[in-house]
Amino acid sequence: MPYYIGDVIKDEKQLIARTPEQFAKSGIDVRLNSRVDAIDTTARCVLLASGERISYDQLVMGTGSEATMPSLPGIELPGVFKLKSLVDATRIKTHVRENRCRKAVIVGAGFIAMEMSESLRICGLDTSVVYRGDRPVRRWDPVFSDMIRKELDHHGVSFIAHTTPLAVEQNGGGSALRLVTNDGALEADLVLFALGVRPQTHLAAEIGLALGQTGAIAVDSCQQTSQEGIYAVGDCCEVFNRVSGRWTYTPLGDVANKQGRVAGANLTGGSRSFPGIVGAQAFKVFGLDVAATGLNEDEASKAGFDPVSGTIEGTPTAKSLSRGEQLKIKMIADRKTGKLLGAQAAGVKGAVNRINTLSVCLWQGMTIDDVGYLDLAYAPPYGGAWDPIHICAQNVRRKM
Amino acid sequence: MPYYIGDVIKDEKQLIARTPEQFAKSGIDVRLNSRVDAIDTTARCVLLASGERISYDQLVMGTGSEATMPSLPGIELPGVFKLKSLVDATRIKTHVRENRCRKAVIVGAGFIAMEMSESLRICGLDTSVVYRGDRPVRRWDPVFSDMIRKELDHHGVSFIAHTTPLAVEQNGGGSALRLVTNDGALEADLVLFALGVRPQTHLAAEIGLALGQTGAIAVDSCQQTSQEGIYAVGDCCEVFNRVSGRWTYTPLGDVANKQGRVAGANLTGGSRSFPGIVGAQAFKVFGLDVAATGLNEDEASKAGFDPVSGTIEGTPTAKSLSRGEQLKIKMIADRKTGKLLGAQAAGVKGAVNRINTLSVCLWQGMTIDDVGYLDLAYAPPYGGAWDPIHICAQNVRRKM
Repeated sequence: MPYYIGDVIKDEKQLIARTPEQFAKSGIDVRLNSRVDAIDTTARCVLLASGERISYDQLVMGTGSEATMPSLPGIELPGVFKLKSLVDATRIKTHVRENRCRKAVIVGAGFIAMEMSESLRICGLDTSVVYRGDRPVRRWDPVFSDMIRKELDHHGVSFIAHTTPLAVEQNGGGSALRLVTNDGALEADLVLFALGVRPQTHLAAEIGLALGQTGAIAVDSCQQTSQEGIYAVGDCCEVFNRVSGRWTYTPLGDVANKQGRVAGANLTGGSRSFPGIVGAQAFKVFGLDVAATGLNEDEASKAGFDPVSGTIEGTPTAKSLSRGEQLKIKMIADRKTGKLLGAQAAGVKGAVNRINTLSVCLWQGMTIDDVGYLDLAYAPPYGGAWDPIHICAQNVRRKM
Repeated sequence: MPYYIGDVIKDEKQLIARTPEQFAKSGIDVRLNSRVDAIDTTARCVLLASGERISYDQLVMGTGSEATMPSLPGIELPGVFKLKSLVDATRIKTHVRENRCRKAVIVGAGFIAMEMSESLRICGLDTSVVYRGDRPVRRWDPVFSDMIRKELDHHGVSFIAHTTPLAVEQNGGGSALRLVTNDGALEADLVLFALGVRPQTHLAAEIGLALGQTGAIAVDSCQQTSQEGIYAVGDCCEVFNRVSGRWTYTPLGDVANKQGRVAGANLTGGSRSFPGIVGAQAFKVFGLDVAATGLNEDEASKAGFDPVSGTIEGTPTAKSLSRGEQLKIKMIADRKTGKLLGAQAAGVKGAVNRINTLSVCLWQGMTIDDVGYLDLAYAPPYGGAWDPIHICAQNVRRKM
């Protein structure tokens, strides 16, 4: 039976679907709060911090990622958070409640920052997003960032661009903390750093597993690392992007789940290969659905394509039923082959529907011409007889 | 310039996007209220009821379909309607308003009947759906019909099964009409027959165009009929189903639009072929989204496949965000090849998203195994890390 060695979880037993005791009944030995200090690949055993050695026939690295935290003065002050695990989430909730927080500052502008700006605002906090760049969620093009900024504005979240944090300090005034930046200071009862994650590869490097160009553990399509019998899955390893044809670092929960199942099949005698991803992603910020798949133009150029793009403003319903809801879609195709390379969408509704549909087109390497004549489920509450997908595809095609 | 000869429209000029005068400015001669009595294919001209002859180089048959109306006593009484055109719709609205209608009976239980039951109920009418079969919308399996019946019940629409209309009569009592059936009579101020459509092929048959097995005009992938230079598009002609590999009669607005564009390209010197359909459809009835694509099990068996199916009850959001909304999905695959053959879905939201995604899988002939590992945009407001699509595909795969 394989061993599962859990993450360090303190007093959070209620969060676990099955307890170690329940696992034990199925003959599975689960050790929580058990840090692995070293791995002896010759003797095939792992060494726990407690001194115990556990032998293995096959090993799965599921060491995950760690949240990026800058080394700023005051970063360890109470009220300064990251959001990586469920434990972080409950700590944030407890802090907000127990300290009757009124002001929150989020540093970073990726989709975790967007989602948290909504959550904190809904909790009644005065919320600001501070970002060194000029616009939120870089993966999306400016036409979509503008929609997101408007949505933040509309819900009272202030987006503060071109601003870099320098220190967190204790505050004498109304709020507990001050975030000092290159452009003045912001008061806050809670400072959340949402600066992305990086793969935890310390143990992997120690035993000489090959890392990819992204810095994450290199794996093959069976999720096996450079050493036979050692697999890696989830946020600690790379994943193959079918559109760019390259190994990428895409630490997302759905990808991790699929990799886990593939590795599980292979190390228990089965044979399954992970087909890769196309880069489908989505998030919700207040009333706006935001989604993307495949490559944006920068990524497409870097991957050696000659991108042509088109953006259209459609409606998520037939025009006869429209109440003015927007659904903006952008598609990117390769001039030489006509293949779809990527898409972005945002709107009050319907964005994720379109991006999922286009993700299958990318998965299969379809051309923009094919996409323009797809058979989609037409009914006025869900779109026009020509769906925004068709209209956008034909727009791109005319430019090629 | 091609001629466009319009449907018979009386006093409904306000419904037309462009008037004949506006078309004329672009050099296009549009004749409304101009019935074509005959076509002379040797002389290449059409004969109008007015006696005028209009010559052509190429001809497009866009004669559409007509609503099926049974030959029952009283079918011509005021207050008895079909719903085929915009004119029918405005007549129904006018009748409801001017006669202060209180009771409506709909005969038939396809998706037009479902949509109209919602519209009439919203207008405040006591609404019944009368159907000779046992359940609404036959294309969907009983597990979905049950959801639809519950939705009708919940909104006060009564569904009367196993009931066949025999006559419409004038009524002495509170309502203007009585629908006499094999199981008693129903009072109504409005009776709507929603029994589907059949292709209008009278002119086509007269000039010897080949009809397909479905009774609609046979076309090739360029939308050309059996006679060179004569094209057919829309509800009067057949369409190729990529999943069954057969020509079918699928009179839907989105299909007609695409066929029109293909024919237009070909008769003006271009070269475009219509890639066919997979059978994607959707409708909304009150708060329920209902969608399907590909083949159901009956259709799959008839098309020579060995269908295996699985149905799962998922949620349209991650479970952590679920408020109990259902999203039921059924998938059908071929035991021999593993290919996806069809899918059905219904739920408060998310059904159309899944059916569109699966429509592309059908379009490309993907296997159920591929579908189980698709990269879809994951975020908790839109589904779990394993989407209902993945879960259902893996459910079907285990049965193969």
